[in-house]
Amino acid sequence: MHIPDETVGRLFIYLRSIRRMLDQDKKVTSSEDLAASCGVRASVIRKDLSYFGRFGKRGVGYDLGALVRDIHAILKLNQMTNAALVGVGNIGRAFLRYPGFKAEGIRIAVAFDKDPRKIGKRIEDVLIEDATTMGERIESEGIHLAIVAVPPSEAQETLYCLAGAGVRGVFSFTPCPPKMPQGVRVTCVDLAMEMASLVYHLEPIRKPVS
Amino acid sequence: MHIPDETVGRLFIYLRSIRRMLDQDKKVTSSEDLAASCGVRASVIRKDLSYFGRFGKRGVGYDLGALVRDIHAILKLNQMTNAALVGVGNIGRAFLRYPGFKAEGIRIAVAFDKDPRKIGKRIEDVLIEDATTMGERIESEGIHLAIVAVPPSEAQETLYCLAGAGVRGVFSFTPCPPKMPQGVRVTCVDLAMEMASLVYHLEPIRKPVS
Repeated sequence: MHIPDETVGRLFIYLRSIRRMLDQDKKVTSSEDLAASCGVRASVIRKDLSYFGRFGKRGVGYDLGALVRDIHAILKLNQMTNAALVGVGNIGRAFLRYPGFKAEGIRIAVAFDKDPRKIGKRIEDVLIEDATTMGERIESEGIHLAIVAVPPSEAQETLYCLAGAGVRGVFSFTPCPPKMPQGVRVTCVDLAMEMASLVYHLEPIRKPVS
Repeated sequence: MHIPDETVGRLFIYLRSIRRMLDQDKKVTSSEDLAASCGVRASVIRKDLSYFGRFGKRGVGYDLGALVRDIHAILKLNQMTNAALVGVGNIGRAFLRYPGFKAEGIRIAVAFDKDPRKIGKRIEDVLIEDATTMGERIESEGIHLAIVAVPPSEAQETLYCLAGAGVRGVFSFTPCPPKMPQGVRVTCVDLAMEMASLVYHLEPIRKPVS
């Protein structure tokens, strides 16, 4: 079954809303309900859900339990995926303790740092290993997903090493380095720049009087 | 001076590369150098920089020191902006200790949590205050920027409270709540969903054989 990328992106958004409804003990929803809850137009929702054979029954709507099971299966959330963490500073530690990954089937299985004072310690049962061994370890563990929380100056080498070890998806809390390895999907969140961009937009720039 | 939003977004990217060059004691750059370093086409860079009167001299290029000063001024990075932090859990603490904000002129001035065991303590010299007082405190401090790191169930109320207190820019580490207050720019990073999306894309979906 081929589902367009835009639809996949929206399935994650629907899933949040659907889970919230299930938490509130709701059993069914309509495309209009879902639209109000997640900000996507009802017609788009109906089309998206029809890709995997879900059609709301007139006057009844969509069964939330069945919907969430289907979406989980499509998004591969019903399998466990191991991830590597590189850089166990403040941000890295927060990742190790982040409770939200489990529901999405993601588990940080290995962690690496280059600081000898951290190597050998455990956080949330995960052993912090020597960063100089990470390529070998990641390859032998068959890990394809990584979280990067190293200083900017180390981002480039870290990405190359991860790519070489077979990692194909990276979430990075470091500014994107100049060169992205081929075949690796990297999501970079540059905290300082995100904040600076918000500051920039606090006051709209006045257009010159023409 | 009106600069298009897309150009502003790219100025942040150029700035990263320019700072890296300055760290390497470079004095000048060309649009081609910059293009290689940040992955934006040279012709786009030349056009972007011309918006604020920067034109590379043929055979000499752009003066890096002047360029960085101009970009700082345009992006308002040469002024200090106070921010509020709401939610001092693992992620919130990482924010308080994040060293990258200072260079962008951002300072977390106040922090709030609802946990009585945290209220009254200090992290990095910032006092953790009672979250039930945050609206009043943020308004009296004249703060317009906030970082939100509360559990998803508290995101909606937190955003309303911040908007009511005069906040106009929010960076949130919580899934976007269903309703965004008017006039507030919110950047949401949903860690678990970002990771789940990477997992989804690890193996490309096979298109049905037709």
